Amino acid sequence: MNAEIITIGDEILIGQIIDTNSSWLGQELGKMGISVIHRTSVGDTKQDIIDALNAAKKRATIILITGGLGPTKDDITKNTLSEYFNSKMVLNEKVLEWVTQIFSKRNLPMIDSNNFQAMVPENCEVLFNKNGTAPGMWFDIDDKIFISMPGVPFEMKSIFADEAIPKLKGKFSFPVIIHRTIQTCSIGESFLARRIENWENELPAHIKLAYLPAVGQVRLRLSGHGTDKTKLNEEINALVKKLYELIGKNIFGEEEDTLQKVVGRILTEKKKTLATAESCSGGFIAHLITSVPGSSTYYKGSIVSYANEIKIKELGVTEEILKTAGAVSEECVKQMADSIRKKFDTDYAIATSGIAGPDGGTKEKPVGTVWIGVSSKNETTAQLYNMGDNRERTIERTALQALDNLRRMILGIAK
Amino acid sequence: MNAEIITIGDEILIGQIIDTNSSWLGQELGKMGISVIHRTSVGDTKQDIIDALNAAKKRATIILITGGLGPTKDDITKNTLSEYFNSKMVLNEKVLEWVTQIFSKRNLPMIDSNNFQAMVPENCEVLFNKNGTAPGMWFDIDDKIFISMPGVPFEMKSIFADEAIPKLKGKFSFPVIIHRTIQTCSIGESFLARRIENWENELPAHIKLAYLPAVGQVRLRLSGHGTDKTKLNEEINALVKKLYELIGKNIFGEEEDTLQKVVGRILTEKKKTLATAESCSGGFIAHLITSVPGSSTYYKGSIVSYANEIKIKELGVTEEILKTAGAVSEECVKQMADSIRKKFDTDYAIATSGIAGPDGGTKEKPVGTVWIGVSSKNETTAQLYNMGDNRERTIERTALQALDNLRRMILGIAK
Repeated sequence: MNAEIITIGDEILIGQIIDTNSSWLGQELGKMGISVIHRTSVGDTKQDIIDALNAAKKRATIILITGGLGPTKDDITKNTLSEYFNSKMVLNEKVLEWVTQIFSKRNLPMIDSNNFQAMVPENCEVLFNKNGTAPGMWFDIDDKIFISMPGVPFEMKSIFADEAIPKLKGKFSFPVIIHRTIQTCSIGESFLARRIENWENELPAHIKLAYLPAVGQVRLRLSGHGTDKTKLNEEINALVKKLYELIGKNIFGEEEDTLQKVVGRILTEKKKTLATAESCSGGFIAHLITSVPGSSTYYKGSIVSYANEIKIKELGVTEEILKTAGAVSEECVKQMADSIRKKFDTDYAIATSGIAGPDGGTKEKPVGTVWIGVSSKNETTAQLYNMGDNRERTIERTALQALDNLRRMILGIAK
Repeated sequence: MNAEIITIGDEILIGQIIDTNSSWLGQELGKMGISVIHRTSVGDTKQDIIDALNAAKKRATIILITGGLGPTKDDITKNTLSEYFNSKMVLNEKVLEWVTQIFSKRNLPMIDSNNFQAMVPENCEVLFNKNGTAPGMWFDIDDKIFISMPGVPFEMKSIFADEAIPKLKGKFSFPVIIHRTIQTCSIGESFLARRIENWENELPAHIKLAYLPAVGQVRLRLSGHGTDKTKLNEEINALVKKLYELIGKNIFGEEEDTLQKVVGRILTEKKKTLATAESCSGGFIAHLITSVPGSSTYYKGSIVSYANEIKIKELGVTEEILKTAGAVSEECVKQMADSIRKKFDTDYAIATSGIAGPDGGTKEKPVGTVWIGVSSKNETTAQLYNMGDNRERTIERTALQALDNLRRMILGIAK
């Protein structure tokens, strides 16, 4: 089973927006066992849209179309589809009711262009758009499926996931495909690959492994294909179990977990609290932690001590430490972690100090040198890293490494 | 003059990577006056690449091809192009020398697959890749230009900017096009449009305006087309001058400026210092400020007072304020701003307190309610906002609004 994606909109061609819809759709289709074989972007121009539809029809069984469904004049996808399929535009009462409801909730008047949102080609089935006024449309023509959706990502995503996928599953029979994502950190891709080499070599042919690296993290995705869902699930569970035996210390979560979510979950479960003292990470750890809803139950706050005088005044770092070891040192981050834990009266604390660059590096402490300290009521430890010479990456890597070091301390996982 | 973009690679179709190259190229081509009329993505499959080339040749004068130039077997773009143009692969000595140099610098052995990087179709001109081993290629066939470049964004960008653009300018004559970007904030797109409506209506036909909205900001881009560069520049300067008269208070910078860069520049120039006290923004302001290299010269740090007890203990907020006005109040952020300025001994301070959600909202203070305070040695002021019901956006909008409020206070710009 294969698919083609057509994205419509001048704003895509001129590069005003980056097309993230196509890659999201590619991933979602892949999970169902549908291969995307071709992608096309055209402007809001009738003939170009028709040419793209004709070309796609020759190649693919499922044609996904996004964009060009807005209420303004430049959006012509709907009328073009109607013409392409020799259909005619009719008013859809359900859509009209929904659009009217949206506008009345926002206390806005319905104007003609909004009524137009409820007009659809007669030969389509409407796919409900719970997040907006432009309905999705499903055309089943000679066993080719054309699905038209708005270009706004969150509208498109819910229409595709909630409306289109169930209809596709009703129309076609798909193989059983099961995905499991294992989230790892504090280990690079090549080292990880070496650690699980034998395990990977012994994977059966119907279960594939993908390495999906991101800054400071590598996701491992297992994709199993088969016919018996229960059996496939058992196989994958057994493989994941072995993976935990091999690299359990580096696995911080599964599926959509992030380190900040996992740390928050652990602290909530254990009813423990956290504070941070950040120098080189400049508040980014605090930002990651507080980006998680509900973080106020376990996170008390941070002192971002960008200036050394703040380290002295607020975090008990002594002139002596700064003079002998320096601000980027084991002594300094340990002192910072210990002080903030006591000062903010929390169970745990994180501290960072380093040289994010581009300036400030020396021969002994080059740009990228970072000390990370973690502290509990029992112990305060610190570790040295080199995070590379890109300021942005250094900040991000430092924050994620710090969260993982805390996770390991709380769970009693040795390095 | 028009162009078409072909991106090649299975990883694009399955959605493993997001294609950012095409939008970057779309923007760069647009700046030169070249319209992108079509974009295609195909996998690493010979026939699909050939079909895409044939289709593109019919539509466009310039065909830009990215991807599929790596040293591994799945990358077939180069051989396919050679075959497509009835050429043959030959060794390019200059490329070989460059590739050899790269490998010797990294102390890596040259293996066959690296030698292959120096093989190119005989009928192409090599475009030097200063950032990698895969050369760019320029084919001039029957007055159609085919440019093949690697898919790695920073390699592609330098080849296009440094090698392809000069060659395109030599081959074709382009109109003079001048772009100016004006960065505005603290005003929504529709309000901005109303404020500059007359100015916009009076723009001459050869100068176009684009609204480029982002979270908390709207960029205005003027694109002038003409033949006389000096005259066009003067025209645009005059228009920009009028724009400053109309909405000067909302203009914080031009071109690639960000609020954090601009605030940093102002503080540096005036030799002033800054501290922050963040509640709902949770360290994100500190992160934005410290993401700018050199920020340690004017930024001393932050207290992220996520828990109320920290507001009391560290920022002089009284039980009385919390009981009567609450943590999300004018009194509270003013106290926070004032305290952190004195505590960290800075010239200026920012404070935030609000309800980022999804929980914690009340009828009087719904999710999105945010107070922002700014403080100098002369005065401390605070303003109330509603940032909407999305946690991530609320944090981002709060941070940018706070930076703009500080900018206005320092520069003495009234609301």
